[in-house]
Order: sequence, then C-alpha cells, then structure tokens
Amino acid sequence: GPTPLRPLALRPCRSWRQQRGCFAGPPAPVRSRLCPVAGSAPPGPAGRECGGPRWLPQGRWRGWASAGAVAAEKELRQRFMAPPVSGLRELRRRRRELRSRMELLIMETQAEVCRALAALDPGASFSVDSWERKEGGGGISCVLQDGEVFEKAGVNVSVVSGLLSEEAARQMRSRGKSLKAKDGKLPFCAMGVSSVIHPKNPHVPTMHFNYRYFEIEEADGTKQWWFGGGTDLTPTYLNEEDAIHFHKTLKEACDKHDVKLYPKYKKWCDDYFYIKHRGERRGIGGIFFDDMDSPSKEEVFQFVRSCAKAVVPCYIPIVKKHCHDSFTPEEKQWQQLRRGRYVEFNLVYDRGTKFGLLTPGSRIESILMSLPLTARWEYMHTPPESSKEAEILEVLRNPKDWVH
Amino acid sequence: GPTPLRPLALRPCRSWRQQRGCFAGPPAPVRSRLCPVAGSAPPGPAGRECGGPRWLPQGRWRGWASAGAVAAEKELRQRFMAPPVSGLRELRRRRRELRSRMELLIMETQAEVCRALAALDPGASFSVDSWERKEGGGGISCVLQDGEVFEKAGVNVSVVSGLLSEEAARQMRSRGKSLKAKDGKLPFCAMGVSSVIHPKNPHVPTMHFNYRYFEIEEADGTKQWWFGGGTDLTPTYLNEEDAIHFHKTLKEACDKHDVKLYPKYKKWCDDYFYIKHRGERRGIGGIFFDDMDSPSKEEVFQFVRSCAKAVVPCYIPIVKKHCHDSFTPEEKQWQQLRRGRYVEFNLVYDRGTKFGLLTPGSRIESILMSLPLTARWEYMHTPPESSKEAEILEVLRNPKDWVH
Repeated sequence: GPTPLRPLALRPCRSWRQQRGCFAGPPAPVRSRLCPVAGSAPPGPAGRECGGPRWLPQGRWRGWASAGAVAAEKELRQRFMAPPVSGLRELRRRRRELRSRMELLIMETQAEVCRALAALDPGASFSVDSWERKEGGGGISCVLQDGEVFEKAGVNVSVVSGLLSEEAARQMRSRGKSLKAKDGKLPFCAMGVSSVIHPKNPHVPTMHFNYRYFEIEEADGTKQWWFGGGTDLTPTYLNEEDAIHFHKTLKEACDKHDVKLYPKYKKWCDDYFYIKHRGERRGIGGIFFDDMDSPSKEEVFQFVRSCAKAVVPCYIPIVKKHCHDSFTPEEKQWQQLRRGRYVEFNLVYDRGTKFGLLTPGSRIESILMSLPLTARWEYMHTPPESSKEAEILEVLRNPKDWVH
Repeated sequence: GPTPLRPLALRPCRSWRQQRGCFAGPPAPVRSRLCPVAGSAPPGPAGRECGGPRWLPQGRWRGWASAGAVAAEKELRQRFMAPPVSGLRELRRRRRELRSRMELLIMETQAEVCRALAALDPGASFSVDSWERKEGGGGISCVLQDGEVFEKAGVNVSVVSGLLSEEAARQMRSRGKSLKAKDGKLPFCAMGVSSVIHPKNPHVPTMHFNYRYFEIEEADGTKQWWFGGGTDLTPTYLNEEDAIHFHKTLKEACDKHDVKLYPKYKKWCDDYFYIKHRGERRGIGGIFFDDMDSPSKEEVFQFVRSCAKAVVPCYIPIVKKHCHDSFTPEEKQWQQLRRGRYVEFNLVYDRGTKFGLLTPGSRIESILMSLPLTARWEYMHTPPESSKEAEILEVLRNPKDWVH
C-alpha cells in the first residue's frame, strides 16, 4: 500500500479564509485524503464509499454559514477536488471575466482527470493538498501514489499572482515580448493545470498535459495575455494503434477551431520535448503551444477548452486497454531506463520545472510531482537491433506523422 | 550479474595510434572487460585470475614492436587501466612538464581506486572504455555495475584539448578570469579524474571525487593554469565515526601543505553541494576547491597529489566496515529517495555535468556515469521526528564541523 503521507506545515489556501472571514482559531493545514468519487458526486464504478471528502471542519463551520453558503459548498464538492484558490464568491462575482472562466476550467479538468484515474485504480486514493504562496495565490495538488494501476499520478492546479521577477521578465522578453514595466514592476497573474501520470505496467504509456493562462499589466495599464499548453504521450514500447488514437483525438480537438493548429502544434511538441544530449525526444509527442494570443481571447479560450476536454478521451482508453497486459522483468527494466530519460528531460530542459526551481516561494513538491516514483540509469545501455526497445528508440529519434 | 554491455562504435584512443604508427587495418573499438588485479599486477585478495587485461591485439602487434616497447607496454599494464590518452612515448618525452605529471597522477589514481574497489567486490569486474573526442583528446571510463557491494562505481579519466567554446570562456570570465583571446580563439588543455561510487548497502555511503588541471593559452602566448577538485561523502544514514574518519583523513592530507586549506575547502564543499530548492546539501561534505593557482604550480600539484592519494584511505575503510551490515527494506527505500536527491543535484546544479551536457562532442555516457543505478521520488515524503532519517536530514540542512 502507499506509504503514509505526512503533512507539511501548510497554511490554508486563501479562498478558505476569504469565503469564511469569520473563521476563528489557528488555521489547520488544509489536507485531506479525498476520494474524488465519494460524497454527493456520481459514484465510482463500484459505487464504493471511502469516507467522503472532508472539505470543512464542519462542526466549527456550520454555526456561521448561511444556507446559501452551505448549498454552494455542496455544489463545489461535487465539481472540484478542493475549494478554488480565488474563492467561490469572487469567481461568481467576476464570472464573465476570462480569468474566472479559466480558473473554473482548470478546476474542472483537474477533477475530471482525477475521477477518471481513480475509477481505474479502485484501491488507491488521491491525496489533496491546498497550498498558498506567500507572494500571492496558491494551488491544489492531487497525487495518487503507488496504486495498482498508477505508480504516480499528479494533477496540479495553481493560480498565482504578484509582481513578475526580473528573471521571468527577461525570459519572456527573450521570447519576443515587449513588456513595459512601471518602476521595474510588472503585475501578473498566471494560472494553469498540469499533470503527469506514470502507470506501473510498461505497456501503459506515461501521459503529461498542461494548460495555462498568463496576464501581465504593463506600465500604461494595458494587459498582455496569452495561453499555452499541450498534451503528450511517453510510451515505453511503441503501440501504433495507441499512437494513432492519441494523436487523432488531439487533432479532432484542434480541427474544430482551425485545421492549421494540429500540424503546427504537433511539430512544436516534437521540437520542445527534445533531450539534446541523447538525440531523442522524451516521447511520441502530441501537441504543444505557447504565447497563443490570436485570433481573440474568447476563441483561444475555446480552443484551450477543447484541448483540456480531450485529455480524458485521448488517454484513458489506452490505460484501460493495457493495464492488465502481462509483462516481463526485462520490460519493467526498460520502462525504468526510460523513466530515467524522463527525469533527465524534466530536470535539465523543461522550462516550467527549471523556472519553478529557481523561483522563490514556489512549491517544490508540486513542481517535482512530475518525477516518476522510480527510475534507473545503466552505463552504456543499448538495446539489440530489431528489438522492441530499438523500435521505440527509432521513433524517439525520428518522430512520425501519426494521422496522415 | 551485470547486464551485458554492448560496445558503442568508438574509435581507438589517439595514444593507441601514436604508439604504434605501424598499426594496420581498420581500428577495432578499444573496449575490454578488464580485471584490474590480473596480469602482472599484484594479485587481488584471492589471488584469482580473470583472463588478464587484453590491451593489445597481440598477434598483430608483436611482429612490429621493439623489445623496449614491449617492456613499456608491460609496465603500463601493471600501472594503468588502459594506455594513457597522450601516449606513453609523448609522456616520457615531456616527463618534466606538469601536464605529463598530472596525466600520470590521474591515471594512477584511476587504477588505484579501481583496484581497491574490485578487491572488495570479487564477483564484479570493471568494463574499461577508451574513447576519443573528435575535437581533440579523449579519455578512459571504468565502470563496475550491479556488483555485490557496489550498485554502480565509475572512475573516469579525461584529457581534452582544443579551442575553448564561447560558452566555456564566458563561464570562466564570470568567475573572475581575464582571458585575452587571439582572433576569438583560446587554445586550452583540461585533464582530470572523476568518480562516483554508489554502494548497494544503505549503510555504506556514496563517495565522489574529482581532481583536474586546466591550462589556457592567451593571445600574448602566456599560459594561465589552475587546479580544482575535491572529495565528498553522501551517506544515507549518519555514522559520526565514519564522518570523522573521512574528514580527518582529508584534513591530514591538506594540513601537510597549509593548515588554512582544510577549513577553507571544507566550507567551499558545503556551499557548492547545496540543493537550493530543497534547502539541503547533497551529503556531509569533504573538500572542494577551484581556480587554485598559488603559491606555485609545483606546490599546488603536490597538494592535489596528496588529496588524490587520500581517496582510498578516506573511503575504503568505511566500505569495509559496513558492506556486510544488515538492513531493512525501509532503509533501502530511504537510500533510494536520497539517490533521487543526488540526481537532482547533478542534473540541476553540478557545474561539470551541466557544462558537459551543453558541450558538443562530450561523451554523455561518461558524464552521466555519476547517476545512480536506481532512484526514487515520493511526493511529500517527510521522515518522522527523531528518526534516523531525520537525523541525517538535520546534518544536511546544517553542516557540522567534524574535526574540532
């Protein structure tokens, strides 16, 4: 079973306090072992109960809350893994703003993916951590560890605001953004959902996705905004049918908006997830994009929404298909070597990880959640020619077109 | 047993060709499974034979060589793991030059450490790879993998020359060096021995050392030179007696030259091996120094020599003492989590690794030899208070003085 997790000394997320200004006494760490299919949510495949989510210290809370707040809380519990960072009241008040709609989308995506994963791994449960960033904002990290089907699955939401660091501003300018700062200060707001799923069975691929929104206020008060994101697959062994299903599902999501998007973002994905020192991609790709700010905020949001909604259909059928496949110790070992490469990419090249590690106040456990439970490095390992291991390496060295 | 290693398409090292200009036919990859205690070297603990080193394609070679060359070859086989990169003849001709003396020192250190390790792990053997760098120079990598005592032990020599890359020159200038280039070109020569030893038993610590020499020729023909290096220990569990032995042995080596060196380099080591995002050091330290160029070339070389000679006495007694200690699965798991931290330091912060990964023509397998065979990452793992695991963490967070 999973190693018992011990809570860090976390402060409750801001929304907690915003929603209940009357909350008295020292804040307890907001941490629960939450079964996402329990409570009033639709029951999981076996209709089982596992104690139900414990969102609120109910005893203390009931006396203070209005009937409306109780109903809102009930609705929230069904939809999300934890109360949203910006607070329900705030999100409702500003419901027409894109920031609020995006925060709801990332919260929904988190819950959708967690529910789908939990349904496939009935013995395991997600631990849910709400955390706050001293400099502004916070997040919700959901992690399932050492399950029957998943070795480690993390789905993380963060909604962060404050002043952009010098380092971050320099990075953005180097990508071609002209950011006019006021007294060197650039207020920003960034939010996103990101996830890495490492299954146990070497015939089930690892999947990663991330969808994010960025807003910066310039000196003259104008706001720059853009979206970024992507979904990509990292198999240990190549299964062409799975690769085609994955890419086709992503392509369909893209094509609804513009048929030019999939080819462009497929290539960007192959280019981005390149482990230069190995001459290999991390996986067989998917889509990746950044700095997307046209044709309009609404249209880009709708595109991102389609991509986020495609996560479950592009990945879950592949997990279902292979999670009971038999495998040999040699296949498990090859998986572990590929996990080593995953670690290499994430620690050496990944922009988000590098940026997070160097940013003061970032939550390390949420950033490094993406690392596999276990990995392996062998000196001079080279698979024999024409083996299944050489087959996937060939595709990682020379990406293929999966949908034409 | 160890996974069979498959040779890369390596060209023979330059020395091979320099020593025998008459060598005909297509060069065979210089790769051997060499037992360092075999041949004419002093027999290992069990006096066993394991086929003996195969340095030369003897049949082809004998007809061409003089009696002197054969004797030289015999001597080499006893002293080194493979023929030196610069060639025996060249080293002999320039034997008074510091470059040559340093190359002999790093070759001797490599062989000494490999012999000491092999003697403790009789079932395992080192694989020895001689490799050449297209841009100039080459190296010899000795790796023992999946032995009884050692999970992975690598000892690498490299002797590299050519023109300094822009990136490298910038890094050096940022450390305060004024390098006047001629037409933007800076000829350099760098050589060193580096090693990481990861034992299987969680009660035997990981050890790392590296000693290196650098020479740069400036526009006016003057040569800048400096030495760098260090030896440090990374235990999974704290054993104070071992920590004291390790640091005392290093202190004695330093004190012979200047009593100010150990305290200075001990602190440098604690500062260098800092995993900033974790707020922890990688291990319990040792010594670390760079850019050492005073009081004189000869004196610094003698200091480096003392440090290199201290590697075996500071580490091997600790391995002998604990390699048969019993351990629990929980202790093994804590070791694996600490190995994860080792990977984080090496891939995110280590200057040498980062530099190597970004340098064209570097040999990735030799650079990443430092990574453990296996590692583990658990989300939110925190050892219980007052546990043995918390004890080592405390020392990694607040380094101790071990010798006063």
